Amino acid sequence: MENKKEKTTIVLFSGDLDKAIAAFIIANGAAAYDHEVTIFTTFWGLNVLRKDQQVPVKKGLLEKAFGWMMPRGPEKLSLSNMNMMGMGPKMIKHVMKKHNALSLPQLIEMAQDQGVKLVACTMTMDLLGIQQEELIDGAQLAGVAAYLGDAADAKVNLFI
Amino acid sequence: MENKKEKTTIVLFSGDLDKAIAAFIIANGAAAYDHEVTIFTTFWGLNVLRKDQQVPVKKGLLEKAFGWMMPRGPEKLSLSNMNMMGMGPKMIKHVMKKHNALSLPQLIEMAQDQGVKLVACTMTMDLLGIQQEELIDGAQLAGVAAYLGDAADAKVNLFI
Amino acid sequence: MENKKEKTTIVLFSGDLDKAIAAFIIANGAAAYDHEVTIFTTFWGLNVLRKDQQVPVKKGLLEKAFGWMMPRGPEKLSLSNMNMMGMGPKMIKHVMKKHNALSLPQLIEMAQDQGVKLVACTMTMDLLGIQQEELIDGAQLAGVAAYLGDAADAKVNLFI
Repeated sequence: MENKKEKTTIVLFSGDLDKAIAAFIIANGAAAYDHEVTIFTTFWGLNVLRKDQQVPVKKGLLEKAFGWMMPRGPEKLSLSNMNMMGMGPKMIKHVMKKHNALSLPQLIEMAQDQGVKLVACTMTMDLLGIQQEELIDGAQLAGVAAYLGDAADAKVNLFI
Repeated sequence: MENKKEKTTIVLFSGDLDKAIAAFIIANGAAAYDHEVTIFTTFWGLNVLRKDQQVPVKKGLLEKAFGWMMPRGPEKLSLSNMNMMGMGPKMIKHVMKKHNALSLPQLIEMAQDQGVKLVACTMTMDLLGIQQEELIDGAQLAGVAAYLGDAADAKVNLFI
Repeated sequence: MENKKEKTTIVLFSGDLDKAIAAFIIANGAAAYDHEVTIFTTFWGLNVLRKDQQVPVKKGLLEKAFGWMMPRGPEKLSLSNMNMMGMGPKMIKHVMKKHNALSLPQLIEMAQDQGVKLVACTMTMDLLGIQQEELIDGAQLAGVAAYLGDAADAKVNLFI
């Protein structure tokens, strides 16, 4: 019976604030519809699952450089469009607050509450030198094979 | 019987000229194949459905600012790549005309003629302060739940 | 029986190195799972299938301009993010080599070995003036109708 649930998967490749918001709105919607939902974060999308504080882990120089350069968590992301050196994200956050729309951190929390599976791509973690301690609690680790297993069963598969 | 029609849905998140062209070419192709097609425009993609003239509606200051900064309709869009301060879109439009390819406004018209459902995301409209009078005739309004209802029934679901 | 194979299709619209890598990793994964996989390259994605040397073909001036401006093959692509005037792709390539991850040219070769269908969009070829001799051996030519035929049969359809 459990297996009869519809599935939805999202590859979140992008680390842009606006695309991450879109991904989590769709994911939360699908979960509310009782779909089994997986967000597989890969490449820049992995940054969405990073904790916002620095976590003391041992890394090589290049891994440290990636860690510094990439945004640490949902509060630091920029926009895919009209970023205007950070003014765009501020405007979007302001307007979302004004309209009582959930912020990205709230959307992520809601996704976790609804049982959306948040997966970090292990290959990306290797390449960019991100370690599990640096990711939010509850983030699962998996590779592309696991993603494909979910996607082959799902009705809705998106790449964002 | 009606329900036996294959369905295709496209989330058009991007407001880039090239991505919008790709979305409408795929949508028109699928409609020609007799699929029931929905383009759900959200975030920047909503700009594709804006009328190109200014429509006198009452707005707050921030909504006015968004209205000014964002491109008004398909003729004003820029490219995702090689935009070169507007030279890229001119080159692309020139080369499309030379090869008798349909322009984006023509592709949109064809989509409407073929019964492609053009939907504006109501949450985006709220956030960016875009009102129905500012959208092309025939644009429908709906939320993410309606999109998910369509997508769960569809064979082909793309996020562009 | 042949027809019972699961299908996966990817529209590769982007000509960014990171997105192309993601597309080919997913395609190779799906092929390893015994899916019938098609990558339909369109717009900037077509550049991924270009040979890296210049091929002497007759072209108009505008087509020559596009040919010069666009990256010739997988080695010349830039990143969607953190490109930093070419330093980003160097860093990514370095870190991939260090971790023994396959490079994009190797991923493309593996895809061909596994029978992934690499398709160049004929409309894009017309518009940008790219000719078959300029594409890697084994690239097939097709239009959007062929893509939709594959996609309507497939379980996983992504737009990258």
